[in-house]
Amino acid sequence: MDGVERNYRRKTKTSAKIFSRSERLHVNGVHHNIRFFEPYPFVVESAKGKHLVDVDSNKYVDFWMGHWSLILGHAPKPVSGAARAQLRKGWMFGTVNKNTVDLSERIAKAVPVAEKIRYVTTGTEATMYAVRLARAFTGRSVVAKIDGGWHGYTTDLLKTVNWPFNQPEGRGLTDEKHIVSIPYNNLEGSLQVLQRVGKNLAAVIIEPVLGGGGCIPATWDYLKGIQDFVKKNGSLFILDEIVTGFRFHYGCLYDVMNLDPDIVTLGKIIGGGFPIGAICGKKEILQLADTTRYEKTKRAYVGGGTFSANPMTMIAGSATLEALKDKGATYEKIRKLGEKTRKQVAGAFDGNVIVTGKDSLFMTHFTAGKVSKIDSASDVAMCDSSLLQRFHFEMIANHGIFFLPGKLGAFSAAHSDSDVRDITAAAESFAQKI
Amino acid sequence: MDGVERNYRRKTKTSAKIFSRSERLHVNGVHHNIRFFEPYPFVVESAKGKHLVDVDSNKYVDFWMGHWSLILGHAPKPVSGAARAQLRKGWMFGTVNKNTVDLSERIAKAVPVAEKIRYVTTGTEATMYAVRLARAFTGRSVVAKIDGGWHGYTTDLLKTVNWPFNQPEGRGLTDEKHIVSIPYNNLEGSLQVLQRVGKNLAAVIIEPVLGGGGCIPATWDYLKGIQDFVKKNGSLFILDEIVTGFRFHYGCLYDVMNLDPDIVTLGKIIGGGFPIGAICGKKEILQLADTTRYEKTKRAYVGGGTFSANPMTMIAGSATLEALKDKGATYEKIRKLGEKTRKQVAGAFDGNVIVTGKDSLFMTHFTAGKVSKIDSASDVAMCDSSLLQRFHFEMIANHGIFFLPGKLGAFSAAHSDSDVRDITAAAESFAQKI
Repeated sequence: MDGVERNYRRKTKTSAKIFSRSERLHVNGVHHNIRFFEPYPFVVESAKGKHLVDVDSNKYVDFWMGHWSLILGHAPKPVSGAARAQLRKGWMFGTVNKNTVDLSERIAKAVPVAEKIRYVTTGTEATMYAVRLARAFTGRSVVAKIDGGWHGYTTDLLKTVNWPFNQPEGRGLTDEKHIVSIPYNNLEGSLQVLQRVGKNLAAVIIEPVLGGGGCIPATWDYLKGIQDFVKKNGSLFILDEIVTGFRFHYGCLYDVMNLDPDIVTLGKIIGGGFPIGAICGKKEILQLADTTRYEKTKRAYVGGGTFSANPMTMIAGSATLEALKDKGATYEKIRKLGEKTRKQVAGAFDGNVIVTGKDSLFMTHFTAGKVSKIDSASDVAMCDSSLLQRFHFEMIANHGIFFLPGKLGAFSAAHSDSDVRDITAAAESFAQKI
Repeated sequence: MDGVERNYRRKTKTSAKIFSRSERLHVNGVHHNIRFFEPYPFVVESAKGKHLVDVDSNKYVDFWMGHWSLILGHAPKPVSGAARAQLRKGWMFGTVNKNTVDLSERIAKAVPVAEKIRYVTTGTEATMYAVRLARAFTGRSVVAKIDGGWHGYTTDLLKTVNWPFNQPEGRGLTDEKHIVSIPYNNLEGSLQVLQRVGKNLAAVIIEPVLGGGGCIPATWDYLKGIQDFVKKNGSLFILDEIVTGFRFHYGCLYDVMNLDPDIVTLGKIIGGGFPIGAICGKKEILQLADTTRYEKTKRAYVGGGTFSANPMTMIAGSATLEALKDKGATYEKIRKLGEKTRKQVAGAFDGNVIVTGKDSLFMTHFTAGKVSKIDSASDVAMCDSSLLQRFHFEMIANHGIFFLPGKLGAFSAAHSDSDVRDITAAAESFAQKI
């Protein structure tokens, strides 16, 4: 055990105890595989603004920000106030409520492709339905995704998530043959695959900034090239903006890139930290789910679920969007923080890292002398991920800075310039050791 | 337009306006197909105890109870108090929190099969993972479900939900060949199907009380017979207790039936009305998801999702279970209310209906002279569902009683004897007209 781990263990004794209870009852001790890290994750007691506080009263500046869903920081007043008021009125109606209409009118105004919206409870559900709609609309079966693309756990898209992108993502998956995979930011290579699928291709689904795959923006040329092929081919173009929607400005990334997706999936930010997923899309496509228009065998079975459009999530989403609307200054502030961080962290490691990202999202890659650019998850796979884990863990143990080890970071409105300085200082300290 | 509809429209003018905004942006105007009913669903403004209040200030005694998730009634004090306190501490940590351990320790105590628990955000996700685990554990691909069984929208189980159980449940489904279907409460017929599948059978998944399929308890003989076959066959026995868990007593139905499932899925009540799903099961099965124990290709990819085990859902679940623990009297009260209702509603219709259910769950079936017993969803399909819709709609319009039209009802701790009288009176009034 090195000094960093010793320091961590010394500071997180109560966490260790509670986590051992958690391990008794929970696989890996967690409820999302990535939340586990060695020797054990600290246990959070509360969160406010940019901080997480653990059960041993350690305070961390948080760059994980609830899987990047909290762009205003933790427990921001406008959202907690709206949620508190909703608690008095009930949080689970199971029927139509006005909060839903309010949220949708906000989204539709900012996201032109959202001619129709269906809320679900998670991103996993949103991508599942998006794919089902595409198959139903086109009458075709194959869906293409990106090598290293992550769209949640739905069986319909659980393939080629992890390097080397040619093994099953686990046991118990039965429908992988209806998924093909294409190389990110490599138009020629992608078109070769898509052309082979040809008229069996129902849709391509892409994150415009690869999230779990390494925080890598797609080039405009790449997305436009895929879109052109897809439209000519009679397939649908699905953009998964669960991470990017309302992250860079008040709306979606596709819109400022002048793209024309058929379906856009949203989640995270639009629920203000409460469970949400949304399928937004063109009317002619989404209405294929209409039970009053089509009989069962003609339509796409798009449901929602017990918790879909619950009034609590809906009001938290509206309060969040209200706080972001007209706040170009907030977006500009966190964009600058991200930009500065990318530059300064790269500087601290003196050419041994590449810091990818866009605006408020960023991720450090230790290139290990093996790559000179990071354009895809394959490039990321060449990097030294254990060094990244060590960097992040050392920030947790010694600097009170929390990135989920190995994952990208996100600035929120609650962060400030001093946080950039602190990350930079931590990077400089780590750089001296390696 | 008949007088009932005229009355409804007259009372729900604000709802009509808001719903037309909802229709502009939402397919069917709703976010769960079943929430739509003709001419339009009223729009809920608030809910408290046994009541829903709509935007025109109409008050309804609610038997839908948030898709049956609210066994304490709407916005019960112990849960809203706990949720309010949590709002101050943050509602979305994205990391390990103590609330999760608290909830799991409660569940594990009451549900012996829950040697390990993994929380997800919806029931749909829970059944998806249960099936994936079964396929991974057995190395087999086929899953059997019930004709009319409902396990959420996951592609892995979306087959034979609706009569006649031999058509696809919609377009865009690609993996139906890995699902087979068996007739409920018909052991011989079921075993014939299962024997044909033989060593390809990964698991059978059953709701011990068919929910969406018609509120019909499974017989002990049936479940035991299926269980015996499954165990001998090397397959897994999955009980979906999302509706029945903590509904009839403090624990699961399988336990008092002396059954031995391998995996039990939970949801609804255990989240106190906040989004939840849970996969509970034997250690040897669930640990197949352990990332520290198995490499990717050997394990089952069981995740969680951004919102899994969020501290708000977890504390609401714990507060609910705390309020139910030692409250045998509550369970006994709602059991009696259900029993009385079944008897009195059947009496009101003088032999023209069968009221199915168990304890606090009940559902009216207009037999149309076609069936003399309701043992399966096929029996339900013989009944006059449009008459049931009319009955429920008339209760909404004329009596201030809300059942989601066509669906089963649930008593909560907030209901009382006067509600049985009111349903009975409404039934007598409807019986005179038909």
